[in-house]
Amino acid sequence: MAEASNSDTGKENPTFKIRRLEISDKRKGYMELLGQLTVAEPLTDDEFDQRFQEISSYGDDHLICVIEDESSGKIAATGSVMIEKKFLRSCGKVGHIEDVVVDSEFRGKHLGKRVVEFLTDHSRSMGCYKVILDCSVEKKVFYEKCGMFNRGIQMSKYF
Amino acid sequence: MAEASNSDTGKENPTFKIRRLEISDKRKGYMELLGQLTVAEPLTDDEFDQRFQEISSYGDDHLICVIEDESSGKIAATGSVMIEKKFLRSCGKVGHIEDVVVDSEFRGKHLGKRVVEFLTDHSRSMGCYKVILDCSVEKKVFYEKCGMFNRGIQMSKYF
Repeated sequence: MAEASNSDTGKENPTFKIRRLEISDKRKGYMELLGQLTVAEPLTDDEFDQRFQEISSYGDDHLICVIEDESSGKIAATGSVMIEKKFLRSCGKVGHIEDVVVDSEFRGKHLGKRVVEFLTDHSRSMGCYKVILDCSVEKKVFYEKCGMFNRGIQMSKYF
Repeated sequence: MAEASNSDTGKENPTFKIRRLEISDKRKGYMELLGQLTVAEPLTDDEFDQRFQEISSYGDDHLICVIEDESSGKIAATGSVMIEKKFLRSCGKVGHIEDVVVDSEFRGKHLGKRVVEFLTDHSRSMGCYKVILDCSVEKKVFYEKCGMFNRGIQMSKYF
């Protein structure tokens, strides 16, 4: 029963490892996973590597995490957080969570919650006073389960 | 009449200069202006300089702009934008606008709109496919006048 429960939640399931994005994750379906969130055209290895290096140059200020299903070698979930440095709140910092997505094949295993917790923990360890994200109204209940609450609205302008 | 109109909008008024934040803006009331937005305790010169250098190290990827009222030498408005680099949308970029505030003394002169336009123009010139921000429901109409539209909700968690 305990095993079945672990398998249901995926929480203690050793097959799901959460870690930082690695350059080899392109081969493990990382871009295809992003394609389940929004438009994510295939990239050449060079394009991927270049963007990977650009993001890596920010060190802990821009972290992309993935959950790998080690039994299949496939990226099952991802999310990112960018640390913003402010002058207000005594030179406070804010974690901006972006692009959280779980592969449709792996949903219902609480992987999304693990991603958000990982990014939230990272933000806390970086000294942030809060972590924020934007989502659709439909996702509100999910993020409330992650300990977040609705604070305002998002406005956007597309070019 | 033309002069009165310019004075009303502040748009062509030469007394209001929009530019990047400079280290000397601490003496021009920059922190006090942020204090009209949220908690912004006074900083020592060293604290301010250090955060200024940290943000400056990102170059064009983190821009803070100010509008200075040159007749009084006071910072009248400010806002910032952070450029996020993604893998999705063909290595797309997004501008995150933060901390837009106009000094209560200078409201009604369209300075907030100038700040948002400046940050939006910067994001476009950096190759972003969109610019986003979070605000209270009360500010929705203002940002609609800046060409933005409501796209979702903001969730947050305070530590």
